[in-house]
Amino acid sequence: MSTLAGVMSKFRLAVVQLHVTKVKADNLSRARRLIKEAAGQGSKVVVLPECFNSPYGTSFFPEYAERIPGESTQLLSEAAKENNVYLVGGSIPEEDGGKLYNSCPVFGPDGQLMLKHRKIHLFDIDVPGKIRFQESETLSPGSSLSVFETRERSSQSFLLPFSLSDQTETRRCCQLLVYPGAFNMTTGPAHWELLQRGRALDNQVYVATASPARDETASYVAWGHSTIVNPWGEVIAKAGSEEAVVYADIDLQYLSDVRQQIPITAQRRHDLYSVKAEQES
Amino acid sequence: MSTLAGVMSKFRLAVVQLHVTKVKADNLSRARRLIKEAAGQGSKVVVLPECFNSPYGTSFFPEYAERIPGESTQLLSEAAKENNVYLVGGSIPEEDGGKLYNSCPVFGPDGQLMLKHRKIHLFDIDVPGKIRFQESETLSPGSSLSVFETRERSSQSFLLPFSLSDQTETRRCCQLLVYPGAFNMTTGPAHWELLQRGRALDNQVYVATASPARDETASYVAWGHSTIVNPWGEVIAKAGSEEAVVYADIDLQYLSDVRQQIPITAQRRHDLYSVKAEQES
Repeated sequence: MSTLAGVMSKFRLAVVQLHVTKVKADNLSRARRLIKEAAGQGSKVVVLPECFNSPYGTSFFPEYAERIPGESTQLLSEAAKENNVYLVGGSIPEEDGGKLYNSCPVFGPDGQLMLKHRKIHLFDIDVPGKIRFQESETLSPGSSLSVFETRERSSQSFLLPFSLSDQTETRRCCQLLVYPGAFNMTTGPAHWELLQRGRALDNQVYVATASPARDETASYVAWGHSTIVNPWGEVIAKAGSEEAVVYADIDLQYLSDVRQQIPITAQRRHDLYSVKAEQES
Repeated sequence: MSTLAGVMSKFRLAVVQLHVTKVKADNLSRARRLIKEAAGQGSKVVVLPECFNSPYGTSFFPEYAERIPGESTQLLSEAAKENNVYLVGGSIPEEDGGKLYNSCPVFGPDGQLMLKHRKIHLFDIDVPGKIRFQESETLSPGSSLSVFETRERSSQSFLLPFSLSDQTETRRCCQLLVYPGAFNMTTGPAHWELLQRGRALDNQVYVATASPARDETASYVAWGHSTIVNPWGEVIAKAGSEEAVVYADIDLQYLSDVRQQIPITAQRRHDLYSVKAEQES
């Protein structure tokens, strides 16, 4: 029985901006400690960053990859249950059938794996003189969308979308979009907050992003700045570049009010265009 | 023969943030003067604001409405030809068959009407204590999408989208999205720039918005701040709240570079979702 049952229209969300090192055991133990800290602050949903158990880099993925279930997801399952939280396990490099995926496992407060989302849009970028990174060199893309719902009387559902630049309308079935992600020092200052605020406003939803903390010595330097945005497009919580846990109270009544004030969904013209998922999970 | 032919990958865009009054003749003559001024600065494409010949308000639309062709569009046709520019004629209240529309006429440098776009998503908002406005009380929505192309060797095409919050992918066929629009003192500071930058980045296109200048005495007070954004999501030109013409050089090679650096289109997964126009103009 989740503690969400009693709160109905509000719950606390925590985003853990983990400092990720090359030592997997350290990453896991620090994640566990910060999940506990977040739960102690009353959080019902906790989100970890992309690639939280491994440095982010194509050369690291094969070495750090695990099967699911495996060491890292076992720890997440235990942490979710011990702390009675929904846990969006950022992502880990997953090995399956000889292929590698960038996979996000989600656990319920009972410790059960609710879903596993494999990143669909791999991150390829090549800005001359700035940054080149090609996830597609080593990773395979996933092939399904992922929506999960908390199973209490409240109605919130959460979506793990494809990428911060996707534009499907599936998201509007949800109240919160969760993006574990690792932007860099080129796209971070230019696009990280803009994309989140855009997604929040376009869909009139809460948006949460979870980045690793910045490590200037890493081969891929993450931007950090994990953020929570409300359905009006306002930043309501934001980390800096260091390890931190940021919190926001998600207010589903406020979300409903915003959707009523500017009724953009009611005006959709499905005779003229469509924006839809071909496949629901 | 348009002067665009010689420039190929660059052209100058002008956005006219017109001060709109209750005197239609003044609105028209001021628009004509500023179109000429913009052409004198080398602009090949000139954009006027939404509702440039009439105060913005449901009570004004019936009185100021015209047929097309009519007085206002005749003037636009002449101004386009005299100044050898593509002219996006903001919008005017249009009367046709007993119905009113919020219509944007576009003229070529030969003075010919290239297309007429009727606003599809009418603007309804009700934020208690802040603003209530319902275009749908008097206006009818249009029913087609509108894309126009300049007819020279260069390949740019421009789209007049439905609204700043629409999310169809049709836009990526284009290099420039043009939004004549009149945000207000509630949505303006909160959403005007965010939506434009979001649309530009999501689609890796240039975005131009044209607002009326702010008139504190009007029943609907426009936010102003007509803006031009580049495909990286950066504001490259912006008006204040007063009447002004703002300029930017649109660089199609830069646009092409951005699309190559972060190839988001190549990653579309049409097996998983679709974002498309059901009807092309």
